[in-house]
Amino acid sequence: MANITKKVSWSSRGDDSGLAGEGTPLLNGTEIPKPSRQLSGSGSVFRIGRFSTVDLEDDITSEEVKFELPTSLLSFCLFLFYVFDEIKCIHLSLFLEEERRMSHMGFRCLEISRWVICGLIGILTGLIACFIDIMVEKLAGCKYQVIKENIEKFTEVGGLSISLILWAVLNCAFVLVGGIMVAYIEPIAAGSGIPQIKCYLNGVKIPRVVRLKTLLVKVLGVICSVAGGLAVGKEGPMIHSGAVVAAGVSQGRSTSLKRDFKMFEYFRRDTEKRDFVSAGAAAGVSAAFGAPVGGVLFSLEEGASFWNQMLTWRIFFASMISTFTLNFFLSIYHGKPGDLSNPGLINFGRFESDSVAYYYYELPLFMGMGAIGGLLGALFNSINYWLTIFRIRYVHRPCLQVMEALLVAAVTATVSFTMIYFSNDCQPLGPEHNEEYPLQLFCADGEYNSMATAFFNTPERSVRSLFHNQPGSYNPLTLGLFTLTYFFLACWTYGLAVSAGVFIPSLLIGAAWGRLCGILLASFTPTSPIWADPGKYALIGAAAQLGGIVRMTLSLTVIMVEATGNVTYGLPIMLVLMTAKIVGDYFQEGLYDIHIKLQSVPFLHWEAPATSHWLTAREVMSSPVTCFNRIEKVGTIVDVLSNTSTNHNGFPVVVQPAKLCGLILRSQLIVLLKHKVFVELARSRLSQRKLQLKDFRDAYPRFPPIQSIHVSQDERECMMDLTEFMNATPYTVPQDTSLPRVFKLFRALGLRHLVVVDDENRVIGLVTRKDLARYHLGKHGLEELQLAQT
Amino acid sequence: MANITKKVSWSSRGDDSGLAGEGTPLLNGTEIPKPSRQLSGSGSVFRIGRFSTVDLEDDITSEEVKFELPTSLLSFCLFLFYVFDEIKCIHLSLFLEEERRMSHMGFRCLEISRWVICGLIGILTGLIACFIDIMVEKLAGCKYQVIKENIEKFTEVGGLSISLILWAVLNCAFVLVGGIMVAYIEPIAAGSGIPQIKCYLNGVKIPRVVRLKTLLVKVLGVICSVAGGLAVGKEGPMIHSGAVVAAGVSQGRSTSLKRDFKMFEYFRRDTEKRDFVSAGAAAGVSAAFGAPVGGVLFSLEEGASFWNQMLTWRIFFASMISTFTLNFFLSIYHGKPGDLSNPGLINFGRFESDSVAYYYYELPLFMGMGAIGGLLGALFNSINYWLTIFRIRYVHRPCLQVMEALLVAAVTATVSFTMIYFSNDCQPLGPEHNEEYPLQLFCADGEYNSMATAFFNTPERSVRSLFHNQPGSYNPLTLGLFTLTYFFLACWTYGLAVSAGVFIPSLLIGAAWGRLCGILLASFTPTSPIWADPGKYALIGAAAQLGGIVRMTLSLTVIMVEATGNVTYGLPIMLVLMTAKIVGDYFQEGLYDIHIKLQSVPFLHWEAPATSHWLTAREVMSSPVTCFNRIEKVGTIVDVLSNTSTNHNGFPVVVQPAKLCGLILRSQLIVLLKHKVFVELARSRLSQRKLQLKDFRDAYPRFPPIQSIHVSQDERECMMDLTEFMNATPYTVPQDTSLPRVFKLFRALGLRHLVVVDDENRVIGLVTRKDLARYHLGKHGLEELQLAQT
Repeated sequence: MANITKKVSWSSRGDDSGLAGEGTPLLNGTEIPKPSRQLSGSGSVFRIGRFSTVDLEDDITSEEVKFELPTSLLSFCLFLFYVFDEIKCIHLSLFLEEERRMSHMGFRCLEISRWVICGLIGILTGLIACFIDIMVEKLAGCKYQVIKENIEKFTEVGGLSISLILWAVLNCAFVLVGGIMVAYIEPIAAGSGIPQIKCYLNGVKIPRVVRLKTLLVKVLGVICSVAGGLAVGKEGPMIHSGAVVAAGVSQGRSTSLKRDFKMFEYFRRDTEKRDFVSAGAAAGVSAAFGAPVGGVLFSLEEGASFWNQMLTWRIFFASMISTFTLNFFLSIYHGKPGDLSNPGLINFGRFESDSVAYYYYELPLFMGMGAIGGLLGALFNSINYWLTIFRIRYVHRPCLQVMEALLVAAVTATVSFTMIYFSNDCQPLGPEHNEEYPLQLFCADGEYNSMATAFFNTPERSVRSLFHNQPGSYNPLTLGLFTLTYFFLACWTYGLAVSAGVFIPSLLIGAAWGRLCGILLASFTPTSPIWADPGKYALIGAAAQLGGIVRMTLSLTVIMVEATGNVTYGLPIMLVLMTAKIVGDYFQEGLYDIHIKLQSVPFLHWEAPATSHWLTAREVMSSPVTCFNRIEKVGTIVDVLSNTSTNHNGFPVVVQPAKLCGLILRSQLIVLLKHKVFVELARSRLSQRKLQLKDFRDAYPRFPPIQSIHVSQDERECMMDLTEFMNATPYTVPQDTSLPRVFKLFRALGLRHLVVVDDENRVIGLVTRKDLARYHLGKHGLEELQLAQT
Repeated sequence: MANITKKVSWSSRGDDSGLAGEGTPLLNGTEIPKPSRQLSGSGSVFRIGRFSTVDLEDDITSEEVKFELPTSLLSFCLFLFYVFDEIKCIHLSLFLEEERRMSHMGFRCLEISRWVICGLIGILTGLIACFIDIMVEKLAGCKYQVIKENIEKFTEVGGLSISLILWAVLNCAFVLVGGIMVAYIEPIAAGSGIPQIKCYLNGVKIPRVVRLKTLLVKVLGVICSVAGGLAVGKEGPMIHSGAVVAAGVSQGRSTSLKRDFKMFEYFRRDTEKRDFVSAGAAAGVSAAFGAPVGGVLFSLEEGASFWNQMLTWRIFFASMISTFTLNFFLSIYHGKPGDLSNPGLINFGRFESDSVAYYYYELPLFMGMGAIGGLLGALFNSINYWLTIFRIRYVHRPCLQVMEALLVAAVTATVSFTMIYFSNDCQPLGPEHNEEYPLQLFCADGEYNSMATAFFNTPERSVRSLFHNQPGSYNPLTLGLFTLTYFFLACWTYGLAVSAGVFIPSLLIGAAWGRLCGILLASFTPTSPIWADPGKYALIGAAAQLGGIVRMTLSLTVIMVEATGNVTYGLPIMLVLMTAKIVGDYFQEGLYDIHIKLQSVPFLHWEAPATSHWLTAREVMSSPVTCFNRIEKVGTIVDVLSNTSTNHNGFPVVVQPAKLCGLILRSQLIVLLKHKVFVELARSRLSQRKLQLKDFRDAYPRFPPIQSIHVSQDERECMMDLTEFMNATPYTVPQDTSLPRVFKLFRALGLRHLVVVDDENRVIGLVTRKDLARYHLGKHGLEELQLAQT
């Protein structure tokens, strides 16, 4: 499998090189500064080393120079602090000093800017959702109108195959645009983006996932996919879009546009950025489903390791603002300005508790449907798994990917058309019908083709029809056929090189067979009125199918409850999702987890596998580990960094004999090499200092690869003094620490490297995320996964 | 202030003595076993010391004996493991071995029992809520019926003072029962219990707070208080009740009833118990407000430090089951069995989005109301603060407390009666009126006294009337007077020696002035229809007032949204709560925080104060710290434990010169002393061993005080070897670690003691929760609090 996984685009070596050092807790508002053992008793005097813009005395070799810091230097120190924060070295003492000197007011300003950023994230995410919604509605509206007119024309004169061709061509045209953008411009924008965001929030950084270009391709791509009639939704990509918006806004600059607004510089670090990205993801969920609480819970479920009240509240704020913005602009667009009672991109329509009550004896039925959902979900995931492996093997060239997308678009149109053509499920067109494009086709006047409400529509509208249309709107055969065809279409579609979500197709499949269940139940018990409403069963089926595919639980329950606008259905939806998850997990993992696993990223789950207590750090760690001396030859460093087999991003720094004295990151070494901070060049470096500081700052987060740094043969013989740049107090564990404990340290403190030492503080190994992510609880106990070694 | 705080009942020394050692993460499902450095390379052979039931060779002085563990010994080892888990000593290696040997199936069984327990917690909490609801309805119904008849009788013949006396006497009778129970039987059951549960979830254990007796007093007390017509709600106590249920069920035994069901023995430890208590609190919220998601968020907001997906899901499950159970039994009670659409003890009634829409230009108005709520809340809290201090000083004898409660009951009745008597706000009694007890009094036939709907009713019903009665049901003067009187009554009532919550009175006050605002707004703009519904403003006012008093945010928003059954109001409620919190925090802390602070418990907030970076562990720690030697004289230990000035619960164990080698807990020392595990008695101890193991297990969680252990003069000269019992790998920090970092370690890893060491691993101090909780961000920067030193 290793050869398969290496081909996937977003698991290249570059992934990890942008990772900051340890001590960056996930989803947690505060950055805890590293303590410096050297600082004892320094009081208001702090030590500054080589990395200073202040003129030092000529005696450069003295490593530390004391000077008093006047308060007027505050802004300058802020500047310094940004730099030193990134390089996470012994100068964190300076960072510490800085935070110590920061006034109460300063912290308050930071807090206020965090809120402002979250507000901006909400507004922008809402606007993007609004844009997508309006564009899809316009484009799909035009398309269906044209086809409808064409069909109506040819129904009478014959020659409906021309309509079919028109439909297929229109679909293909849209999908072609979307597919080309994704395949050639930004492949990371393919799919729903949820696996990528899950990884990002987990701490695995994936290159280009939060770039402006990705956002553009994602947004335009999803419009094309949905307008192109594929079996996809526009909700999943909203989560990704929100995340990109957050990553951009919070940094106050766009590296792609080469614009720096000189704002929010404090937040240019992994911890803060990840917090904002989680807010963006929540805002995306909120905009997609009109579910602010669901969005918060989604972010927490996917990203949190350490609960932080203020952060959670900010996330909630971003979500609320996002829903509000979307609502506000959509209400203007729909000509009812100010009416805010219709939230979200997808709105399931209100389930009024009076009309659609449930009784306790229906709960076992619901759970049975949950089990069906779990089974079908596992089937869906298995098929998609094999399909994805097939794609990774054989469909990895962009032109092939576009062609596959076109094929799917054409097949979707053909199948839809065929189903509608051969269906003879005619329903009377009531005075208050909700159908946007009722197709009469071969039905009598005043009637419409029922199959067409499911196929000849955007999936969102189809879901709503299945939930809310009157009992009797569909006959069972229509629903059964629809379920079957749409299941395979959706399964084939997910993983194509188009941006598209799987939420709505899943809901649609589930709603179809759920409604079918409702109709069958009603036919068994014709006397009892409570079985009469198949819309209720459509809702339960939709929840079951979605739960069976994505295996989310708490957040999905809340999202469904918020999207239906009725809290009464909380318990049944929860039970259904639980059943679906339990049944589904027995056969196959969730769809997102499958795709994450196929990328072989070091994804850390919540807890260490239950039966991993017998593993100790000694067995888990990578060993032998490449260490550097405090004063190391440049050639050695370049060789180690260039060597693809030493793929660590952190290297212990030791004094002989192998005694740990610090940890230095790959990115730090690269910046040091780039600026040739060599002991021998110390004299001539005075003039360059300011430049260096600026470069450290600018280097984040896109550190150059080692190959781009030219080191001459002479320079290879120079020495580099790492003492000042390394993190002098890395976390360590003794070698007998059990795996769950190591795991917990990683999760709770957001570590990336954990040095394993023996009793005498000698380095004997290094535990990284990959070492932990390898272990996995399979059906037959603990299994060791093969992760991408690059 | 210190002399005040010492008198408060739940901050006695006993508080902390039940605390387990460090390494108990808050709200986190897994217990990470301590690693044992001694275990290196032992593989399937493990070492067992003196604490073994296996016959050892005569050579007792050899500390470690190796033997092979056959698998048939598994159950026996499970037994051992429970014991050793409690004593958290070096034998955690055994615990580790045990978890290592536990099969995948074993872990699955544990997981299933956790779910079963959560289900039981939900069912029992729901039943208790049901019981309270029905009892209150019955008793209050009888009372109001009797008084109504009496009033009707005397309205015509004159002599309404007799009705007043009857009302006052009935109220006093109920309150007398409730007050006596609380004041004499279980003072911890006073109030809403939310501050206590907050402390418990924070890691501060308060004696008797989760006992069966407390539950009984709480439940009966709250029925008496509400039926007694006090300005209280029955919702807060539900949270406490749920917590007690959880603590009881999860332990599989009742220490009060001396019953041990031999179930769930694995969960008899602080970590697991606290997880279940958080589930119980969530179930309580869920039952009280019909808000399962709100309950989960409440638990997380108050208790979580480390987000755990499975735990959160279990909490959600308990919440759902609790709402379901309550609903189910209430639906039977109300004669509509199976109708589950009416959740929660308090139901605000549905706000249909069609009838009560809001527009974006109302948002500033809502925020203005939020500011008013914040101001009024701060006023409420300040008055209550002074009142509480007065009570602590002068009203601390039970009989005085009962008399104060009676006084409040009588005054409440008198004020209510007077207000009704002098009110001339008569409203026509429509055909579909919702009033349970419409008082005609001096109104014309077919009309009722509007003031009486607010005062002559349980507070829950009054809130609902204010939300949903037709516009024009109340005139502004009635609402103004009601707000004023009820404000002071509620303020006086909170803190009485009765069990009672503050949620409903707050909502009622807010609903009254909110409705008043709505009416005033409508009178300014008589033409615009959207101002017409004052019920909307009543809802916003209620949220503002409650937010201003309790300062909860995320969870309260969700609770309000779930209780109104309409997600549309999410944004305004959130904005209102945020404004109320910001405004309120400027003047005064939240009510629960005030009460927690008055108890001087070492409550740890989410983060270290923002400006505390300049503090290091050296400045924060307690020093000098009492240390024990590895082999210590019994007399010394007894003296140290008996000395009230050494109030630590953990003592570093050192080898000369002061080099740290372990940490031992007060509770461990007490059990060791009780069983006289002295070096000199080693020979004769063989026969006692089994007894000791059992006693260790039974001692949890009520360890005896040191005074109850008799140590003779001879025994004082004996030596105790602590090596086997101490935790050999305590967490340590260097002395220059900054306060935020220490704080984070405490929160993330759930520590209780952190040993501060110098470069050579010598103990120089000990940081405990109290040392951290002292620091507080006041208006003028960092302040140091005076915490109870006992």
